[in-house]
Amino acid sequence: MNVQYIEDLAAGQKYGSGRLTVEPERIKSFAAEFDPQPFHLDEAAAGDTLFRGLAASGWHTAALTMRLLVDGEFRPAGGIIGAGFEELRWPRPVRPGDTLHIASEILEVRISKSRPDQGIVKVRTTTFNQDEEPVQIFTGNLIVQRRPAADVQA
Amino acid sequence: MNVQYIEDLAAGQKYGSGRLTVEPERIKSFAAEFDPQPFHLDEAAAGDTLFRGLAASGWHTAALTMRLLVDGEFRPAGGIIGAGFEELRWPRPVRPGDTLHIASEILEVRISKSRPDQGIVKVRTTTFNQDEEPVQIFTGNLIVQRRPAADVQA
Repeated sequence: MNVQYIEDLAAGQKYGSGRLTVEPERIKSFAAEFDPQPFHLDEAAAGDTLFRGLAASGWHTAALTMRLLVDGEFRPAGGIIGAGFEELRWPRPVRPGDTLHIASEILEVRISKSRPDQGIVKVRTTTFNQDEEPVQIFTGNLIVQRRPAADVQA
Repeated sequence: MNVQYIEDLAAGQKYGSGRLTVEPERIKSFAAEFDPQPFHLDEAAAGDTLFRGLAASGWHTAALTMRLLVDGEFRPAGGIIGAGFEELRWPRPVRPGDTLHIASEILEVRISKSRPDQGIVKVRTTTFNQDEEPVQIFTGNLIVQRRPAADVQA
């Protein structure tokens, strides 16, 4: 698939992804390294917490979402580079064995005033589980390159 | 260290952390799993990108920040559970060998209307490198438990 330059992007465009399954052991090993709290580490201990069962760290969900983005249909020129996020929410837990996919929608496209070779694209990416329930919603601004002048002339 | 209930928290309180060093090989292996883009995977390829050298994935920085939070001075009752974020930015790249620490500040404390046993605490956490330059800023709302009635009477 070709990369998308800022000129190729417009509000309302939608992009999908493949699917990734969340392995129970990876929930625990990710948490052991980055988020060692009982509800991410151990089924029995997790039962007594707000989560009422083992749940993936939100940062694990965010990292898996990034993998779905990088391998997905949205291929901005220069790579997927976040300039900052305005919203990041986890409306429900990711459970062991869940299968995730994403849907991204372009909300806004603008050319950078300070860097005319770049644009900023506001994108909302929703991560769904196998029951099509949203498990993460994030809205962020990505830096996307303009089409090089040589390409425009070609 | 004792846990902090919602009644113990107030705007203006500040909390620190220990330090973590970002291993070059872990930057690459994290990226290989979650964010396989050239600027996170390979020094030579990264030189030609916006980052001008190998940089950690922002999600790796976020995950390391979570580890600093979990091991740090801020110990909310019930654990560190994010209800959602309003801001997440990476003002400069994290480089191989950087040593990170965090500073968190409580911005707002309120009791939940729908769940009177819980409160919501707005916290801004800034992650710094060894030169005290900010590499990540995030502002989010955490769910914190109220002190149990038995404790109040004791």
